[in-house]
Amino acid sequence: MQPQPVIAVLAGNRPIVGLAELEREAEVRVTDAAGLPAALPGADILYLWDFFADGVRQAWPAADSLRWIHVPAAGVDKLLFPELAASDVVLTNARGIFDRPMAEHVLGALLHLAKDFGRAAAQQRARQWSHYGTADLAGASVLVAGTGSIGRTTAQLLTAVGLHVEGMGRTARSGDPDFGTIHASADFAVVAGQYDYIVLAAPLTPQTRGLLSRDVLAAMKPTAVVVNVGRGALADESALEDALRTGRLAGAALDVFEAEPLPVSSGLWELENVLVTPHLSGDAQNRLPALARQFADNLAAYKAGRPLANVVDKRLGFVSA
Amino acid sequence: MQPQPVIAVLAGNRPIVGLAELEREAEVRVTDAAGLPAALPGADILYLWDFFADGVRQAWPAADSLRWIHVPAAGVDKLLFPELAASDVVLTNARGIFDRPMAEHVLGALLHLAKDFGRAAAQQRARQWSHYGTADLAGASVLVAGTGSIGRTTAQLLTAVGLHVEGMGRTARSGDPDFGTIHASADFAVVAGQYDYIVLAAPLTPQTRGLLSRDVLAAMKPTAVVVNVGRGALADESALEDALRTGRLAGAALDVFEAEPLPVSSGLWELENVLVTPHLSGDAQNRLPALARQFADNLAAYKAGRPLANVVDKRLGFVSA
Repeated sequence: MQPQPVIAVLAGNRPIVGLAELEREAEVRVTDAAGLPAALPGADILYLWDFFADGVRQAWPAADSLRWIHVPAAGVDKLLFPELAASDVVLTNARGIFDRPMAEHVLGALLHLAKDFGRAAAQQRARQWSHYGTADLAGASVLVAGTGSIGRTTAQLLTAVGLHVEGMGRTARSGDPDFGTIHASADFAVVAGQYDYIVLAAPLTPQTRGLLSRDVLAAMKPTAVVVNVGRGALADESALEDALRTGRLAGAALDVFEAEPLPVSSGLWELENVLVTPHLSGDAQNRLPALARQFADNLAAYKAGRPLANVVDKRLGFVSA
Repeated sequence: MQPQPVIAVLAGNRPIVGLAELEREAEVRVTDAAGLPAALPGADILYLWDFFADGVRQAWPAADSLRWIHVPAAGVDKLLFPELAASDVVLTNARGIFDRPMAEHVLGALLHLAKDFGRAAAQQRARQWSHYGTADLAGASVLVAGTGSIGRTTAQLLTAVGLHVEGMGRTARSGDPDFGTIHASADFAVVAGQYDYIVLAAPLTPQTRGLLSRDVLAAMKPTAVVVNVGRGALADESALEDALRTGRLAGAALDVFEAEPLPVSSGLWELENVLVTPHLSGDAQNRLPALARQFADNLAAYKAGRPLANVVDKRLGFVSA
């Protein structure tokens, strides 16, 4: 009988869903980020149950036997450090699980902004009855930056409610089943002025960092709004705040920020044309059982010597389809 | 050459879109509600441009030549008084124009409640970063009360985003193209417990007044939410407020109220699980040109002796398809 694999589980303060089942399949070492250097030696697998945690790069020298890291999240940007990229360690993520809740969050954010429910809520607090005009989503245009599974599910949902959707990715192409036209991100400033809504749903990589630049913001319609469910650093957050504060841009719904938690000192909190949500668009809280099941399935594949699902291309920074 | 028809236009404070064009087609008498008794004698047509205005019933004895009343609104409940019903005067409304914006408003309200953006906004005002779980619309169930064009467009949009939709109307039937199953409103309390969302989009008639009764509210899931875009009096507003205040019902998005403007003293303003909007779901403010065009088209039909579009069945209280 083969020895059980050794799994270091970085749990933080989160209760580990499915722990008892895991312990039947492996030798499990539960740790926090501080304990990682002690937990890694001899471990075959690192399971980042607390996927917001830092500390893997710092503990890397202790990873003497590591063969696989699983992150139950869509974004793996915190793991794109050169030592891991250069190693043989396989990296997998939770591709698929967050697609639908994130697409619903984006649609809700577009409607929140189009119908100006923020204004309604402010009037409600003031017990003030005052009509105002709203915008239609039907026939409006939206650019979705990010052509992975989150961007595609979002595009499908927005198309279903009558928006005209186009995409943005590394390379320009046409005839895409979900996006029709996909623009190259290098052309972002050239095409940005065409859209009523711009949605950021791309992975954070060296190529996408700062994608929503000051130049792109300057090219957008002043009536346009931005929704970011990807990573805060996809946008130049300072330029974005300037544009929202001066009315250069009509509004934004931001679920992700350059620093999280968003610092109390951030000027974004106070902007009335911005909806701040605390990195919850994927609704991970209700998806812990699905995330645990996805890892258990991949662990079964690992133990059987079958290929793992959702292997991240460590050079690109995402699962390449 | 035939004499031009005489139109009394109840304008209130609203600028009349298309007035110059109307004046080429008819003798136009612009009035407010107080001036209606003086404007009606000899008038062939009453055009209620200020469709929120009262006063038609009070002025009715002055309507000595009236043949047609047009209301550029969907709901005609204020005009269902017996003298008009018993007369030969034809009543038309703005059927169709508000369908899509109202359906989008309903979808936005469902997402606002499912994603608890009200909580996000409260946290934002407190500069507080705190995760919370949200609900999915996909696979949730919704009952749409009202099987007219607004209810149908709403059902189509909610189906497109993955909700399971059923309808409620005067009589039960199955195999409906938009709703599948339609329940009889007499059975509301029997079926109310099956749904995650209940949308009120029915006309206000003697049969629908108080439809969302205390009994129906008591039968609903405690996690369910109500959206009302029809008329305030479709619900027992006091019972609804009780249910929302005690947590018997999870939330509501209310665009219409028993009294409008909603009185400053109403307890609904202060409920954190309620989104109050000031009767704007149809976004009439951006549809004034379309409303003016719809009346102009019907006026052309009137002058040519052709049948009018969107004739309300004064016994039923809505345009019967």
